[in-house]
Amino acid sequence: MRSTMQETPLGIATLLRFASTAYSGSKVHTVTADGLRTGTFAEVGARTAQLAHALHDDLGIRGDQRVATFMWNNQEHLETYFAVPSMGAVLHTLNIRLYPDQITYIANHAEDKVVLVDGSLIPLLARVLPGFETVEHVVVVGAGDTAPLEQAGKRIHHYEELLAGKPTSYDWPDFAETDAAAMCYTSGTTGNPKGVVYSHRSIYLHSMQVTMPQSFQLNEANRVLTIVPMFHAMAWGIPYAALMSGASLVMPDRFMQAPALVRAIHDSGADFAGAVPTIWSDLLNHLDATGEKIPTLKRAVVGGSAVPPALMSAFEERYDMRIIHAWGMTETSPLGSVSQPPAGAEGERAWSYRVSQGRFPAGVQARLAGPDGAIVPNDGEAVGELEVRGPWITGAYYRDEDPERFHDGWLRTGDVGTITPDGYLTLTDREKDVIKSGGEWISSVELENHLMAHPAVAEATVVGVPDPRWQERPLAAVVLREGAEATPVELREYLSGLIPKWQLPERWTFLQAVPKTSVGKFDKKEVRRAYAAGDLEVTVL
Amino acid sequence: MRSTMQETPLGIATLLRFASTAYSGSKVHTVTADGLRTGTFAEVGARTAQLAHALHDDLGIRGDQRVATFMWNNQEHLETYFAVPSMGAVLHTLNIRLYPDQITYIANHAEDKVVLVDGSLIPLLARVLPGFETVEHVVVVGAGDTAPLEQAGKRIHHYEELLAGKPTSYDWPDFAETDAAAMCYTSGTTGNPKGVVYSHRSIYLHSMQVTMPQSFQLNEANRVLTIVPMFHAMAWGIPYAALMSGASLVMPDRFMQAPALVRAIHDSGADFAGAVPTIWSDLLNHLDATGEKIPTLKRAVVGGSAVPPALMSAFEERYDMRIIHAWGMTETSPLGSVSQPPAGAEGERAWSYRVSQGRFPAGVQARLAGPDGAIVPNDGEAVGELEVRGPWITGAYYRDEDPERFHDGWLRTGDVGTITPDGYLTLTDREKDVIKSGGEWISSVELENHLMAHPAVAEATVVGVPDPRWQERPLAAVVLREGAEATPVELREYLSGLIPKWQLPERWTFLQAVPKTSVGKFDKKEVRRAYAAGDLEVTVL
Repeated sequence: MRSTMQETPLGIATLLRFASTAYSGSKVHTVTADGLRTGTFAEVGARTAQLAHALHDDLGIRGDQRVATFMWNNQEHLETYFAVPSMGAVLHTLNIRLYPDQITYIANHAEDKVVLVDGSLIPLLARVLPGFETVEHVVVVGAGDTAPLEQAGKRIHHYEELLAGKPTSYDWPDFAETDAAAMCYTSGTTGNPKGVVYSHRSIYLHSMQVTMPQSFQLNEANRVLTIVPMFHAMAWGIPYAALMSGASLVMPDRFMQAPALVRAIHDSGADFAGAVPTIWSDLLNHLDATGEKIPTLKRAVVGGSAVPPALMSAFEERYDMRIIHAWGMTETSPLGSVSQPPAGAEGERAWSYRVSQGRFPAGVQARLAGPDGAIVPNDGEAVGELEVRGPWITGAYYRDEDPERFHDGWLRTGDVGTITPDGYLTLTDREKDVIKSGGEWISSVELENHLMAHPAVAEATVVGVPDPRWQERPLAAVVLREGAEATPVELREYLSGLIPKWQLPERWTFLQAVPKTSVGKFDKKEVRRAYAAGDLEVTVL
Repeated sequence: MRSTMQETPLGIATLLRFASTAYSGSKVHTVTADGLRTGTFAEVGARTAQLAHALHDDLGIRGDQRVATFMWNNQEHLETYFAVPSMGAVLHTLNIRLYPDQITYIANHAEDKVVLVDGSLIPLLARVLPGFETVEHVVVVGAGDTAPLEQAGKRIHHYEELLAGKPTSYDWPDFAETDAAAMCYTSGTTGNPKGVVYSHRSIYLHSMQVTMPQSFQLNEANRVLTIVPMFHAMAWGIPYAALMSGASLVMPDRFMQAPALVRAIHDSGADFAGAVPTIWSDLLNHLDATGEKIPTLKRAVVGGSAVPPALMSAFEERYDMRIIHAWGMTETSPLGSVSQPPAGAEGERAWSYRVSQGRFPAGVQARLAGPDGAIVPNDGEAVGELEVRGPWITGAYYRDEDPERFHDGWLRTGDVGTITPDGYLTLTDREKDVIKSGGEWISSVELENHLMAHPAVAEATVVGVPDPRWQERPLAAVVLREGAEATPVELREYLSGLIPKWQLPERWTFLQAVPKTSVGKFDKKEVRRAYAAGDLEVTVL
């Protein structure tokens, strides 16, 4: 039996039309060297139409061609977020922080036809632009010396010149809600980056969810400081969710250092923010050092990596700002779990929920697959790789099937942890860092945390190394504190009171320092490589 | 270009699975003569599975067969709301307040196979059951004398006996999100009732919207007193939205009088409620008379008909409870507009928005069609019939096409009013009561309000009557106050300072009382009939 409901597609043009009338007075503030510049959602609506006319008439964009951005967070990037999908083309946000080779690979793999670039990012783009094989047009946003771009043989345009005189409305076409709207590449540590293609449907549903009280709870009164870059997992969907809810936006552009962020908060009255943990560490140090306050900022969603609980409590106690821990990835649009404690939980109990990765909304189904691929129970004890399913979760990669990343239609996240019966996720390891020993998993992170709590240990990392009998066994690589002493036997004895006996490492090595990746994480791949190459002096107990 | 997103359907079973684990401890309280009885969402989840097994195994429900309810708001009705659609069948809520002929027509038109009935409603059902041609089974919920049902020749079952021993989980099948999930008939004042068939998709999207801050803003901490009946426009979607958000439910069953509602608020700590204006008038009178307070109840959504501003301010000033005005209809699932004032509006300005019908969310597009069918601007001045479009708006009636109710794919609501540039709707008339004069519309309600403000006038109604030159012209039917005097010329002179000259009525009649409908509204049809029959003494100026 068919329902009688209208078959109205969920679309980004609908969202734009809605926001630019119902919330015509909501603001988008962009930070500049001289303070904020400000537009309204009505202006964003009109300029979005002008941009679409320019892309169509002047740059010849048709159908689902890809329009890339190489931009900070600012009003023009927001206009591009709406113009490109609403006209039926596909927005492709290039991550300016990737290696040049990766950026080139991505632009060519997506077959970008146009790149919009902030004037301040011209030097960075100029290094890679000659390798962009399909790009024909570069649109420069704001002021900047375009000379470095000119050798690449592309046509150069200026954003405001393109928009000038164009009509301020556009007859947005109809298309299927499952059509592509935007794409973003993830950069794994191995292999080429992989493309995730969002649909009108997925972005629309995700925007609704972001505004819901169980997620970010946004409404027209909010002023959202969007620090997470628009080239990173669609800025967590905040730009689209802002137009869905009417929340005003505060865009830091390239002014991402702590003093500039504090000034932006003061100038805009921002009451909500989203950023990765390192931003908050920097901000906390700055506030503590200067004695400045950020009284309007009441809530911040923090994700991208685990948030140190000390950071959460410092902001709460000293700055009356609540950090909300969240988990997601480019493949999940990215809203996954958000650590809102259950209603009624207070004190220590609430805290234990808040430091977890949180709970999923109805739109994201989650389960854990154990070492043998079988689903393990959500009992808060059983450990497995997190698998997720839902209308804003990717089911493939763009022109790169990679079936190993999927399990019966569920996305394998590569994150390992537990889920409680009431649905709270706690992540412990990346799947690739977990030690697979005799059909069971050993958490490297748990071993590391215990070792680093030993008074003689400065740093420690634990990796899985091949073992003929157990497949893998843990190798503990320890850096002792200056002047401290401890033997493998002593350290193993210490661990034996803390973890099951079968998890105790047999292999031990002492290092001068744990090798680190470019972003400061333990470089476990390097430790495994050194072990395999015989470069480490290993004691076997 | 296709997106890479998963094709996960939006479905009620997903919502049920989610709520019964993530919000396993949320409550559903049902009012009884002895206080509240309480279940958890976990129990609702288990019992929903049991009910589905019973419907499938014992009652033979297959495919999209219709399962009807003839019930108050209670836990068992909630279980039916989830069991029937989740198993793939179609829930049909019968409105117990319709005329017996209408109920019989509806049950036969929908081809209901099963009816669930509250024990307390057996006498009412017994009057119509013999005419239910397709119904084979009656399931009695709770205690009640089943003797009156027995002559109808249906098999009689008892709810708890059916559930006993059934498995507490069910392998919910997959189906398309556009498949039918539930149906509800609207009873217009003329013709047969018409069926609206909701889909899994429409209910799921509607539930998300209901919980959003711009609509009802619901989360796990809320306790929602659902006074609006579950047989009326799906109780405004609150039962589904509660499971989406984790909000606990308070269900009044048959205890709908003011003292019982006050007790239910006290016993449950309800902080949010939904009901039509008459319930709130009764409650206000009761509170004022008894001196009782309802301190936990902070917000109430009120819709179904326009809310008197005096009622809103009385609750706000005397009981610290905010009434939120909303507009919707069975055809719109029903969430349409909600009168949250714009951010930053205060005092008189906020009030002017709050007494309007409010603003639509992104999912409901709205426009006004003038007398000639052309779309008029949203300028707060131009008057037109409200037309709406969106994924939870009906595009047809079940087996009853009625194309006149649709306009290029938009639903014609039959409501007439204005929309401001920022999207706030103000309704003035029903389309059938508007006076169509020379291609323009005259608001009968505006004329009535002006006339009733005249000191000599007790009541007045204005209807359109046929006119050879102008198609229709207004006839003013006036009831004078006891002992007061006024002539048509005087009243027309009085009006001439208040409305445009071309709207002034030429035809006047004086009545002893304005005829009323069974629900107390002016019976304009009767006034028109009496005029046409020559039963009125009319002065023509």
